[in-house]
Amino acid sequence: MSNNPTLEQARKRIAAHISLAATEMVPLAQAVDRVCGLSCHAPYALPEYSQSLYDGFALGMPERKEEELFWYALDGEIAAGDTGIKTVASGSACRIMTGALVPRGTWKIIPQESCVERDGRVAVEKDFAVGLADNIRKKGSRLRKGTRIVTRGRRLTPMDLVRLADFGMAEVEVYCLPEVHFFCTGSELVDGTGDKQPGKKYSSNRFQLAGLIQQAGASGLDHGSIADKRESLAQVLSQATAASPAMIISTGGMGPGKYDLLEESFARVGGKTIFSTLRLRPGKSMLFGILGTSLYFGLPGPPPAVHALFHALVRPALMAAGGMNRWRSKTVRARLVENIALAGADTLRLHEGILFHSGEICSVRLPVPPETPNCYLLCQAGRKNYQQGSSVSVLPFNGGYLAG
Amino acid sequence: MSNNPTLEQARKRIAAHISLAATEMVPLAQAVDRVCGLSCHAPYALPEYSQSLYDGFALGMPERKEEELFWYALDGEIAAGDTGIKTVASGSACRIMTGALVPRGTWKIIPQESCVERDGRVAVEKDFAVGLADNIRKKGSRLRKGTRIVTRGRRLTPMDLVRLADFGMAEVEVYCLPEVHFFCTGSELVDGTGDKQPGKKYSSNRFQLAGLIQQAGASGLDHGSIADKRESLAQVLSQATAASPAMIISTGGMGPGKYDLLEESFARVGGKTIFSTLRLRPGKSMLFGILGTSLYFGLPGPPPAVHALFHALVRPALMAAGGMNRWRSKTVRARLVENIALAGADTLRLHEGILFHSGEICSVRLPVPPETPNCYLLCQAGRKNYQQGSSVSVLPFNGGYLAG
Repeated sequence: MSNNPTLEQARKRIAAHISLAATEMVPLAQAVDRVCGLSCHAPYALPEYSQSLYDGFALGMPERKEEELFWYALDGEIAAGDTGIKTVASGSACRIMTGALVPRGTWKIIPQESCVERDGRVAVEKDFAVGLADNIRKKGSRLRKGTRIVTRGRRLTPMDLVRLADFGMAEVEVYCLPEVHFFCTGSELVDGTGDKQPGKKYSSNRFQLAGLIQQAGASGLDHGSIADKRESLAQVLSQATAASPAMIISTGGMGPGKYDLLEESFARVGGKTIFSTLRLRPGKSMLFGILGTSLYFGLPGPPPAVHALFHALVRPALMAAGGMNRWRSKTVRARLVENIALAGADTLRLHEGILFHSGEICSVRLPVPPETPNCYLLCQAGRKNYQQGSSVSVLPFNGGYLAG
Repeated sequence: MSNNPTLEQARKRIAAHISLAATEMVPLAQAVDRVCGLSCHAPYALPEYSQSLYDGFALGMPERKEEELFWYALDGEIAAGDTGIKTVASGSACRIMTGALVPRGTWKIIPQESCVERDGRVAVEKDFAVGLADNIRKKGSRLRKGTRIVTRGRRLTPMDLVRLADFGMAEVEVYCLPEVHFFCTGSELVDGTGDKQPGKKYSSNRFQLAGLIQQAGASGLDHGSIADKRESLAQVLSQATAASPAMIISTGGMGPGKYDLLEESFARVGGKTIFSTLRLRPGKSMLFGILGTSLYFGLPGPPPAVHALFHALVRPALMAAGGMNRWRSKTVRARLVENIALAGADTLRLHEGILFHSGEICSVRLPVPPETPNCYLLCQAGRKNYQQGSSVSVLPFNGGYLAG
């Protein structure tokens, strides 16, 4: 159990080492999709004053009860934004606009399309006036004082910003974006776009990591591509550690090879290994540990393995460090729309898939090249065949986008 | 049909006026989630050289066929990144690392865990060596020259960035973010956090719009809150038009009220109305038109109406202007998990809901305050009751996030 954990065990052990990011104040206009750092409650009830629901007339108490049409003497108007406290006398009416402050003495408000205006007077049908609602949004009726308006750990939506702005709040406390330093290892890697000799290849994981980190709501810093040499690895590890980021990620250098020096270098600079192999494919060689004050993820080199392990383990850790309430990667159930045959393995495997809607059913199939996958099927250990129509567990990329 | 279109008709009429954004080059490290502006094809096949799939030994042709263990003379090694073209003689073996250039004369590569090394020689079991694959990723076997690697109109994923970086591409052509100017109207609105008198309220739609615009992959510019006065409206409309943004959005000032001056002001500065009312609730008063070279959306004032109409109409228009291939808002089918009774209406209505997974089924229910909705139910005209278990059309916020 100290090494070779299952996916679930690995997630728990990672979670136990996560430190929550600090918080900062940001202006509301920049706060969307940031994670709320402090629950806020309504400091007073809303609306702060009784408001008209319509453009129409605020009627005083009726005086002549016998008539079929009630006639009111028109006396002034109140526009939205008018601040003087007015009074409407019984038998009188005041023109009023949607959202405007309802005057003292108002019996009810009648929308203008239900009224007749003539010679400085306004008429309303008796049945209409008596039978219907008062069309007033009463002071305090929308939101009670003390109601929670945003919740800590929630990614702020545009609707949340309205709730905060309604109280004149100009800023909101959010978690700082977790900082992630990363580098790619491999003496075959070439940065940049210049010519290269056979045996060398362009480094691509750095761009993948930059994108994955940004999508996870974190802030990335790229240390570039590093040769498989002890001194180079020691140097980049020391530089990254000195900055005390929330997380350090490397790709490559894992495994049994003569030049797989990552684990050795990690230990040499004082890294503490929590596990270096997983009961998961990909994940046979994957280091998780602590280096200085940073979580350390030593991912394998192949880009598909980097993608899979980022989604399964790194992303949930980043979300948790960034304050998200529900940090666990969401798996969903989906119905397989084809028979699939897979190479068996002795562990859980992440297999690329396409998740889509089919009527009300979440459905999944394998990608057809050059289609790009949008999820992983979680294929159980030893299972080689899945029948069409069976229910499978799926890990969507980025926590829940569905193809249409 | 000239006015009062249905939701579908309104979408089509908006789509007919959309201009596609220009494109720009951005570095790969900043390209995630941007919309690809030009399809790219593989300029050559990958991999560029035959690579070892394992850390192990590249064997030359075997010489002694009678033995149970094949013994090879060890002759040198090739690490990943070594560029000299080597040759392995028959009867010899060369140590080789994962990803390294396979030497000339290689018969097959055997993983090191299947070999025994002793006294400058390496031994492999006969059955093992003869029976198995050659463990070589052959030159050109992964991706053919000319294969499309990214597609115009697609939002770039981290995997797409790997495909581009594999060819040493440092930049990618993407659509520019559509520019959106916006302002809120209402003499009752107060910007900032200062004291305010009864009758005034803090402006909140501007923060909602800032968030919605950012989430739609566009760039917003806020002109602030504007009083219901002809000269103020004319001024902000002229300022916004002069900048020729892709889109101008206003909130408030729509409707039949005496101070609902938006439509009049819009016409006065030369705006051309396409429609000003919709067969949709909310949407009774909503202006769509053209102002200068910009699309113009005059949304109503209430923040929930702004949110609904943004998702139903504005967001799809922004996605299309920003180059997204499938610009239409995705509606999905979901199973209702409760009976609901609604006020009837003569048009389609957008009703807030909570979309969630229940097993393999996409399910939907009404939000329970203070829960925040994550989708709209599309409630058909005249329909007052929906039974538990019925299938309903749902428009998820932001095009597809599902609650877990």
